[in-house]
Amino acid sequence: MRQRKVISMTKPIIDDALTNLYSALNFPKTLIMADLGCSSGPNTLLVASELVKSVDKIRQKFGNDESPEIQIYLNDLPQNDFNTIFLSVSKFRKNLSNQMVSNNSSSPCYISGVPGSFYTRLFLRKSIHFVYSSYSLMWLSQVPEMIDINKGNIYMSTTSPPSVIKAYREQFQKDFSTFLKCRADEMVSEGRMVLTMLGRQSDDPSSKECCYIWDLLATSLKDMVAEGLIEEEKLDSFNIPQYTPSPKEVRNEVEKEGSFVIDRLEVSEVNWDASTGNNLNLSEEEDVQGYNMAKCMRAVAEPLVLSHFGESAIDEVFKRYAENIKSSMSREKTKLINVTVSVTRKG
Amino acid sequence: MRQRKVISMTKPIIDDALTNLYSALNFPKTLIMADLGCSSGPNTLLVASELVKSVDKIRQKFGNDESPEIQIYLNDLPQNDFNTIFLSVSKFRKNLSNQMVSNNSSSPCYISGVPGSFYTRLFLRKSIHFVYSSYSLMWLSQVPEMIDINKGNIYMSTTSPPSVIKAYREQFQKDFSTFLKCRADEMVSEGRMVLTMLGRQSDDPSSKECCYIWDLLATSLKDMVAEGLIEEEKLDSFNIPQYTPSPKEVRNEVEKEGSFVIDRLEVSEVNWDASTGNNLNLSEEEDVQGYNMAKCMRAVAEPLVLSHFGESAIDEVFKRYAENIKSSMSREKTKLINVTVSVTRKG
Repeated sequence: MRQRKVISMTKPIIDDALTNLYSALNFPKTLIMADLGCSSGPNTLLVASELVKSVDKIRQKFGNDESPEIQIYLNDLPQNDFNTIFLSVSKFRKNLSNQMVSNNSSSPCYISGVPGSFYTRLFLRKSIHFVYSSYSLMWLSQVPEMIDINKGNIYMSTTSPPSVIKAYREQFQKDFSTFLKCRADEMVSEGRMVLTMLGRQSDDPSSKECCYIWDLLATSLKDMVAEGLIEEEKLDSFNIPQYTPSPKEVRNEVEKEGSFVIDRLEVSEVNWDASTGNNLNLSEEEDVQGYNMAKCMRAVAEPLVLSHFGESAIDEVFKRYAENIKSSMSREKTKLINVTVSVTRKG
Repeated sequence: MRQRKVISMTKPIIDDALTNLYSALNFPKTLIMADLGCSSGPNTLLVASELVKSVDKIRQKFGNDESPEIQIYLNDLPQNDFNTIFLSVSKFRKNLSNQMVSNNSSSPCYISGVPGSFYTRLFLRKSIHFVYSSYSLMWLSQVPEMIDINKGNIYMSTTSPPSVIKAYREQFQKDFSTFLKCRADEMVSEGRMVLTMLGRQSDDPSSKECCYIWDLLATSLKDMVAEGLIEEEKLDSFNIPQYTPSPKEVRNEVEKEGSFVIDRLEVSEVNWDASTGNNLNLSEEEDVQGYNMAKCMRAVAEPLVLSHFGESAIDEVFKRYAENIKSSMSREKTKLINVTVSVTRKG
């Protein structure tokens, strides 16, 4: 769901970037694109589909007869379920050709899977025209190395020692700058990149807008420590490898790295879970939203919690977390902040 | 095992093709290669490894300081287990960099998975420098459509109606020519392609050298029909979608399609199963070879037999097939014929 929402929110930015790319490359016959952190689910190929349709519309607007052939690389970590994506490719291509402005007989789009971390080189030098990434770049390459224990917390929080906040910030700076360097090597001059990540508006990395959702998980875990269900040392050594940057931090890293010009840098807000669209009364609606948000956070956090606390704790942790999320959502509207940056590779 | 053998047998042909490619492209900084029908097993990345090492040696021979960056596309049908391949990529890259002549700090090789039939377009136009395929092109895109029943047979045989032989031959011609057309679109001028497939020396497509191994499976199935374990109609409608061409047929199709020049066209023989390398006496050796060959044929034929005859027949079919293979191997040395063709994309 969230992926679908992000694509529709960033669509004008993507269209803009692709239009400029298309004319800068002087009506290319082939375009090579990458979706970094593509994941594996019903919406994975939605990005590819939007990219191809957007290029087809742009091509038509410029009065070109033939759509360029498009290669789309789908990237994620090697543990990602590429098999499931690959099994849906032929259906995707069939649907796509029905939706195209022109009805080319040739297949306009070639899909390929690329396993690996986007904090390393993934592609040949100077080979990529367009990079897209959504809801992936707030994930750090590792939990930051901390000199102090982040006592009672599992993420940055108002009660975290300053050294913990510093470690998180520096890990983000290092990772994002590595990301930019790798992409700078791989992209052609005039190549475009549109990145959306969870972020924050405040300058303070421990502000509620980004940390509250993890505070609620910390509360569940602390309660279980108090009840003797989880060892305190286990909790002390658990931290979420995520950093939700402010637009200013994103701008700083792009400018420091130096290979890209920023075309657009935007912040948008999404409710923790937008309306379900059903005819429910307010409290039912809140229940459904809480349920959806809890389900979504479980999908995100479960692998981390599982590998640290083990199988036995899992269900109880997420039962409590879901309750905390639901009761918090009934008290106040909480929002997620998206930061989107659109950049051009310098010549 | 067989994959490993084919790579070492065709290595001089590959080295030759890559050397000519490297100098024709005037010491390229990047090379894009594809392994079509890569399968999924312990030897899948062996091809990639050999290609990268070969390029590194050639680069050194020409006195170049830097190895080109290499992109290798691994292609197979969408049902192939790409996940398992992807999980072994990082180990493969580590091993590889230890084996390189130069010890570049940057990774020399980018791996990507491409799901789809190689009888369709898989890549962008004019994007590929080198194509490799081993033991895949004898598989047809489908069972040939036959006007007569191939009574008592499951493949071409001396007792097949001439119309059956004709249908098989025409399916091969159509498929192989489609393959060549697709690759011609995708390959750059001066691109090289090395293809090894099971084949035959004789001009007769029903000759024993290629058909005997399937005759032994047909015998097992016919015995089971006689014993009422399989319905006769089931057997009548079962045919193996394979064609093992002669070098002459391969040459004809390449020349007819017209986009490629043949550099080398070679035939080699392999025993059904080469020596196990253990110190066994002759009859033990034969037993092991029979066992290996039976295991190998089961891996190849099981998906076909399973989808046609169902789960219940499988174990009995392959028990009998294994016995037939073993007893045949104790009576005579039987060989597999490989046809290898090395071609250059015309300018």
